[in-house]
Amino acid sequence: MTRIAMGVQYIGTAWNGYQKQPTRDTVQDRLEIALEKFACTRLATTCAGRTDAGVHAIEQVIHFDTELERAPQSWVRGTNAFLPESIVVRWAHVVPADAEGQDFHARFSARSRTYHYVLYNHANPSALLAGRAGWVFRPLDVERMREAARHLIGTHDFSSFRASGCQANTPVKQMHEVNIERRGDVIVFTVRASAFLHHMVRNIVGSLIYVGTGRNRPDWMAEVLDARSRDAAAPTFMPDGLYLASIDYDPKWGLPQEAVSALPF
Amino acid sequence: MTRIAMGVQYIGTAWNGYQKQPTRDTVQDRLEIALEKFACTRLATTCAGRTDAGVHAIEQVIHFDTELERAPQSWVRGTNAFLPESIVVRWAHVVPADAEGQDFHARFSARSRTYHYVLYNHANPSALLAGRAGWVFRPLDVERMREAARHLIGTHDFSSFRASGCQANTPVKQMHEVNIERRGDVIVFTVRASAFLHHMVRNIVGSLIYVGTGRNRPDWMAEVLDARSRDAAAPTFMPDGLYLASIDYDPKWGLPQEAVSALPF
Repeated sequence: MTRIAMGVQYIGTAWNGYQKQPTRDTVQDRLEIALEKFACTRLATTCAGRTDAGVHAIEQVIHFDTELERAPQSWVRGTNAFLPESIVVRWAHVVPADAEGQDFHARFSARSRTYHYVLYNHANPSALLAGRAGWVFRPLDVERMREAARHLIGTHDFSSFRASGCQANTPVKQMHEVNIERRGDVIVFTVRASAFLHHMVRNIVGSLIYVGTGRNRPDWMAEVLDARSRDAAAPTFMPDGLYLASIDYDPKWGLPQEAVSALPF
Repeated sequence: MTRIAMGVQYIGTAWNGYQKQPTRDTVQDRLEIALEKFACTRLATTCAGRTDAGVHAIEQVIHFDTELERAPQSWVRGTNAFLPESIVVRWAHVVPADAEGQDFHARFSARSRTYHYVLYNHANPSALLAGRAGWVFRPLDVERMREAARHLIGTHDFSSFRASGCQANTPVKQMHEVNIERRGDVIVFTVRASAFLHHMVRNIVGSLIYVGTGRNRPDWMAEVLDARSRDAAAPTFMPDGLYLASIDYDPKWGLPQEAVSALPF
């Protein structure tokens, strides 16, 4: 039995989120259907982080166990042959247990996760970015949003940014980075943390927008955090611009993770 | 009666081309349905250049005549309210006749057209660019393609790159620019000419790829042009990566054309 890790890219617009559903209209369903067709046996997969309906992934990481022996690029091409074009396996890698006999695990071995949120900031919407970016027609002040974002760095109780149905054990997470960059009419938020609560990135982006439009002061972000109450933050922002960008693992696993966490736009 | 010009952006993936069809599943059909809903009267539109099924536009230009008096931004917001999100009116502008009494015409007033072709050049396809870029898995040599492209510059008979059903009066067009730029795994072709024959950009890109992979020499492009026969060139390349980028008009018309001919990726 060998454990195989895969890097999976997808556009979530047409799918009902990542996680398997009885309706079989999710990314995981389509991935497992394709793996089964290639491997001629059912393979149960585990992912690094589930994404909601309409959310995309530049590089989701999954793992599964199999008796089948195939070259990594055969797994890639063979699985892709049975996938719709909005879901693509980018790489496959055999991950043996480490020196201490510990197995690689897509979720538990992850050290941090990085998301991008892409925002289109223009008076009129963009057809090219429909479903691929959030849209705010009011001008946004990036410097104000950066000032607000500084309050989020470090270890905090992020209950104010947590969806009611969130199943995480603890609302305390370590926020490593919130970077905000303007490229013409597009603003890219890059958020890296130990782990994320349900809707956490979309709730943070929604709150940063409240600061960027001038509605709230940058210091308001500290008040929102302190409140530890979902009512304190802004509403959940649209999923369209959210991309799971990359998962960080110990280099000992030797995963061929691509330097594709950069968006193609 | 006033003549109004509009800048229209669209993703062509879901539409059966630009031009009106009895099936009403084209960009023009959707645009005229939206205009009719906003204006409460039918408005016949004329475009700068028709695009095929699956082809996108960063900025198509159209015009129509109307008795209705509305501020330009009302035309934009009002029409967008009735459009699907893959079609967006970006600007509207009242164009009076010029000093010689000549009317603006989206097609006949155009001095040149610019297209981008976006190519993803990687061993495995990209889910993020599915439908938005062509895909070539063989490594492409950009310098070789540039050498080949130089043969296309100037006034030529482009019959070798002309689809059989093409309705243009003449196959002789003036090619102003063929620029090829690599950005990581993405290659962007920018082609500017007086006008284009049907399938001309896709046939040129297909032929440049034959040179880029090493299959044909750069000089082969001159032979293809000289042959004036569709059989001499490569097959028509997929529509996915083709974008009508901008239409060039005399500044006397004062169109508020946006500097968005740059792709969002």
